[in-house]
Amino acid sequence: MNSMLNPNYIVGFVDGEGCFSITINKNNGRLPEVRLLFAIELEASDEEILNRIAATIGCGRIYKVLYRKHPNWKPHSKLKVSNFKDISEKVIPFFTKYPLEAKKRFQFEKFCKVADMMKAKRHLSADGIEEILRIRNLA
Amino acid sequence: MNSMLNPNYIVGFVDGEGCFSITINKNNGRLPEVRLLFAIELEASDEEILNRIAATIGCGRIYKVLYRKHPNWKPHSKLKVSNFKDISEKVIPFFTKYPLEAKKRFQFEKFCKVADMMKAKRHLSADGIEEILRIRNLA
Repeated sequence: MNSMLNPNYIVGFVDGEGCFSITINKNNGRLPEVRLLFAIELEASDEEILNRIAATIGCGRIYKVLYRKHPNWKPHSKLKVSNFKDISEKVIPFFTKYPLEAKKRFQFEKFCKVADMMKAKRHLSADGIEEILRIRNLA
Repeated sequence: MNSMLNPNYIVGFVDGEGCFSITINKNNGRLPEVRLLFAIELEASDEEILNRIAATIGCGRIYKVLYRKHPNWKPHSKLKVSNFKDISEKVIPFFTKYPLEAKKRFQFEKFCKVADMMKAKRHLSADGIEEILRIRNLA
């Protein structure tokens, strides 16, 4: 069993180690594909804390990360949430209720803006994609 | 003014980004010198959060860190507590009351053991130093 963590603990941890990313993949001449990802990557020996964060937020899967080109690097584990429903119904409400305090909050704000656009299907038009690119590239 | 942070936030942040170090400096043929340091290093653009952590814990100074050999690296800021009284009366009681959850707690346990030995002046004898070295090198 993964015991729950204090939500403020998770906010502190994510302010240091978390990542809210917006990727825009070229799509073979068709409209580019937009993906949101919330992730935390740690040394695999700290995987337990990732399980507890996932249990507390209520979503996310843990993956092993091996650096084949860097055999001396320690193996890592990565918590990932890439499913839009989980991002929209779990991740965003969590960090809206318990706000980030460090500059990572700006990354989160952009992430939320793009999620809103995706909810309104605006990522399915060329001008929506352009707007998402502009948001992602804001300083 | 640096507004206070929720203590659980600080625990999460430090579990990710904090460092409890024990250094044993050679001392010109005399008994080596033992020093404890609690530190958090971040990009300088996130310095505000270090000020707020210092305000909440009640100690620590912020230093600029420049990487002269790496002009492309962003400047960093570092919160440091190296004063034994602050470590003993502020840092250790804080993380005893609000325990670390990730594997960093083992680093903190060793740090506390050495602080206890220093309080008992055991770092002023050769066998005390040997014991501190043994603690520091525990896996």
